[in-house]
Amino acid sequence: MRNLKIIMAYRGTNYHGYQIQPNVLTIQEVVQRHISKVLNEPITMVGCSRTDTGVHANGYVFNVHTNSSINIKGLLRGCNNLLPNDISFLSCEEVPEEFHSRFDCKYKEYVYLIHNCESKNPFAEDLQLHYRRPINIDLIKEASRHYVGTHDFRSFSAVKDDNIDTIRTIYDFNIESCGNLIKVLVKGNGFLYNMVRILVGTLLDVNEGYILPNQIPDIIDSKNRLKAGRTAMAHGLYLNKVYY
Amino acid sequence: MRNLKIIMAYRGTNYHGYQIQPNVLTIQEVVQRHISKVLNEPITMVGCSRTDTGVHANGYVFNVHTNSSINIKGLLRGCNNLLPNDISFLSCEEVPEEFHSRFDCKYKEYVYLIHNCESKNPFAEDLQLHYRRPINIDLIKEASRHYVGTHDFRSFSAVKDDNIDTIRTIYDFNIESCGNLIKVLVKGNGFLYNMVRILVGTLLDVNEGYILPNQIPDIIDSKNRLKAGRTAMAHGLYLNKVYY
Repeated sequence: MRNLKIIMAYRGTNYHGYQIQPNVLTIQEVVQRHISKVLNEPITMVGCSRTDTGVHANGYVFNVHTNSSINIKGLLRGCNNLLPNDISFLSCEEVPEEFHSRFDCKYKEYVYLIHNCESKNPFAEDLQLHYRRPINIDLIKEASRHYVGTHDFRSFSAVKDDNIDTIRTIYDFNIESCGNLIKVLVKGNGFLYNMVRILVGTLLDVNEGYILPNQIPDIIDSKNRLKAGRTAMAHGLYLNKVYY
Repeated sequence: MRNLKIIMAYRGTNYHGYQIQPNVLTIQEVVQRHISKVLNEPITMVGCSRTDTGVHANGYVFNVHTNSSINIKGLLRGCNNLLPNDISFLSCEEVPEEFHSRFDCKYKEYVYLIHNCESKNPFAEDLQLHYRRPINIDLIKEASRHYVGTHDFRSFSAVKDDNIDTIRTIYDFNIESCGNLIKVLVKGNGFLYNMVRILVGTLLDVNEGYILPNQIPDIIDSKNRLKAGRTAMAHGLYLNKVYY
């Protein structure tokens, strides 16, 4: 059987996240339906990750097993012609049969976009968090340095089950600003439920003075969600890249 | 009477252009309605330019005369709270009573955005022209050099009336590419109806080999719309900046 690794971008605005669920529209349902049509057999996607309602992807990876002999170019064209305008296949390649887009993932990169300006951005209502107060980049950078490394990130997650392993490693946490746009890049070996949004939301609380940069280590140590800051809105978040 | 100069950004997707018209929704109608509410008197906007259906603006300038004593900050906040999410006031300043946003304009800058990739961009369906074939930047740059200067641009306009003066000066015509995004910047003392879209469309015809770069001077000299290339789609075009 062939195993195809596909990278896609999607605007999550109109979907209840990636994973298939009854009674709501999801990315997986729409993509599975169209890819099954093009490959002319029922297809089950193996996705690299779930994404929340409203979260976007620049480079979501999944793989599918198929008996179809369709060529790669034909598959890409066929699917991109059928898919709605908010989902786009970027590339497709043949991979070894045992490749698994979730289990084989080494690390993932997320991007969080903030439109930092009194006036809203009429082109990015659902694509960037609109944050009106001026952001002190140096201050939030200072706080974010404490995120990097291997920590128990329970305080920075919506995980409720005590038995879940909440230790993760963040390799990079970068904040870039260009005009009104602030781009937060996080690379790690894995992320807990809502983790990136809480990491970013806590930086906004730092910006507003509710949390001091040097309090971050204590917040991590507390393993208590209530000690960390707000959960930043979903629509600023992008699954940017998955590394294998 | 006070005269206020306001700069706004808008996403033109849902509007029949800037100028007020019966039975269709326009930017002017929506903005005039809200600004009249905030200033508590009927307001007529003096706009710097018309824009076509679907064309966007990063920095559209207009001015309004008012008896209101409202402060600038209050006006901006009040309007931005009322305006729909696809229109945003960026700045407002008090100007001399005789200032006229159209007559006093020295030059204007337009930007045209092209997503140059086989796959579509799910975040910019209505914000960038999707052009699938590879663009030869050097080739279209070579052609575009002939645009710069003072010429009769009748071939590059949808103007039908022979009595209209079609001589314009283009000061700069730049083409930048960054990843899949190609950004065309045009600065001139004025633009004819559809002129930027035909200048860009002709470059796409150059890219496809229908027109050679060194044929551009002859096309200009012909003063014949049929000699120039296609009209590029409206949704890639932005009125970027107006200079006074």
